[in-house]
Amino acid sequence: MPETIEDLNCRGYRFIQGDGCFRFGCDAVLLSGFAKVKKNEAALDLCCGTGIIPVLLSAKTLGRRFAGIEIHERSADTARRNAVLNGIADKMEIITGDVKDIRNLIDNASFDVVTANPPYIRAKDGVTNAGEHSSAARHEILLTLKDVISAAAWALKHGGRLYMVHKPERLVEIVNLLTEHKLEMKTLRFVQAYADRKPSMALIEAALCGRPQLTAMPPLVIYKTPGVYTDEVIKIYDGRPMGADL
Amino acid sequence: MPETIEDLNCRGYRFIQGDGCFRFGCDAVLLSGFAKVKKNEAALDLCCGTGIIPVLLSAKTLGRRFAGIEIHERSADTARRNAVLNGIADKMEIITGDVKDIRNLIDNASFDVVTANPPYIRAKDGVTNAGEHSSAARHEILLTLKDVISAAAWALKHGGRLYMVHKPERLVEIVNLLTEHKLEMKTLRFVQAYADRKPSMALIEAALCGRPQLTAMPPLVIYKTPGVYTDEVIKIYDGRPMGADL
Repeated sequence: MPETIEDLNCRGYRFIQGDGCFRFGCDAVLLSGFAKVKKNEAALDLCCGTGIIPVLLSAKTLGRRFAGIEIHERSADTARRNAVLNGIADKMEIITGDVKDIRNLIDNASFDVVTANPPYIRAKDGVTNAGEHSSAARHEILLTLKDVISAAAWALKHGGRLYMVHKPERLVEIVNLLTEHKLEMKTLRFVQAYADRKPSMALIEAALCGRPQLTAMPPLVIYKTPGVYTDEVIKIYDGRPMGADL
Repeated sequence: MPETIEDLNCRGYRFIQGDGCFRFGCDAVLLSGFAKVKKNEAALDLCCGTGIIPVLLSAKTLGRRFAGIEIHERSADTARRNAVLNGIADKMEIITGDVKDIRNLIDNASFDVVTANPPYIRAKDGVTNAGEHSSAARHEILLTLKDVISAAAWALKHGGRLYMVHKPERLVEIVNLLTEHKLEMKTLRFVQAYADRKPSMALIEAALCGRPQLTAMPPLVIYKTPGVYTDEVIKIYDGRPMGADL
């Protein structure tokens, strides 16, 4: 698919993607609406791809610094071009590297917020082509859930928050891995296509060394009726068309 | 409160409660609607009180045997009278005893299903009066969450299912304790008073040595509008008034 520049419908922000890079989906946009970055906080996105989450968080929050780690060179380059395109190169840094190698890439306890939209599918669960990075973005070829959570625990300050989007099917594994890494799940919100449909995604907030007490939220429902978004989704999405990945 | 006999609006079943015993709430009724007892299965209710869950499961399912453990002598007696009242004394057995002592009360791996509507509140979290059994039913004075899950793991056959209702706030602790006891959470359904309100309860199904794969359900919503139940709740509840504990 050729490279495109899309209008993000948010404070004039635009976004380059395509040309062989994994295109962002609605999960990334919903995660950017769920994550809270407070004034002057520093946020790191793991596996940032072409930078949609750092760019959207920069547009939507008063954070001071937005970083991303991306293993795929071309995606990382595109992410840097997205920073320049939006005039935020001074506060957005993209590190080309492997999240598994985070201990050599960034300092311990150096971020207030970590975001992650990691691959959902266990490598063994589907037919994959390890040579394709779009396959790597969907399958745990390069990175397991444990790698992601371990990296978040390394990067976060005491009390810092991880915001992650993942599949409800894997919630038990997620909770166990969070606990193992001293990350306490503080908020859980399922995402459903319709009010009476099973959740297809889980939005999770976890705090490093947080006090045990979960807030479960009512589900985020995408559609009122076929093709008609709920008001909450329109607010998050600002009218742009959503992916068909729900 | 004096003793009362209520019509359970289900196949003519009636129910004695009161006279100093903890009165059943809507959580017990919703749990009885969530639990699946297949034909000829044996089901055990932990902390059965006056026996509402065994009685409702007997009314609603084709299970072969319904047992309950209850530490409070008067409640256990009332549960036995409820079995007689409904003509199910031949298949409903109430054991007076402490769930913590389950290894001396019932055989290991002897039940297909365990149900539990345990105390929700940590003993240290609220002012309690340890002398009152209605307080014991709400607070973890006599029994912790770990005691309940450990007892379920003892009682269940390989592949057997635990159905529990608890507070969403404690989901992380629940998942960790289930995992510790080889119980895999298979289904999670939150209960909400209204569609846009935070969940107030969590209905959980876990299988002993089950394969990891959670099914998250859309929430069970209680009210369409104030005082008007949703169709699903009417079906579960059969028109009886619900408690104000949502």
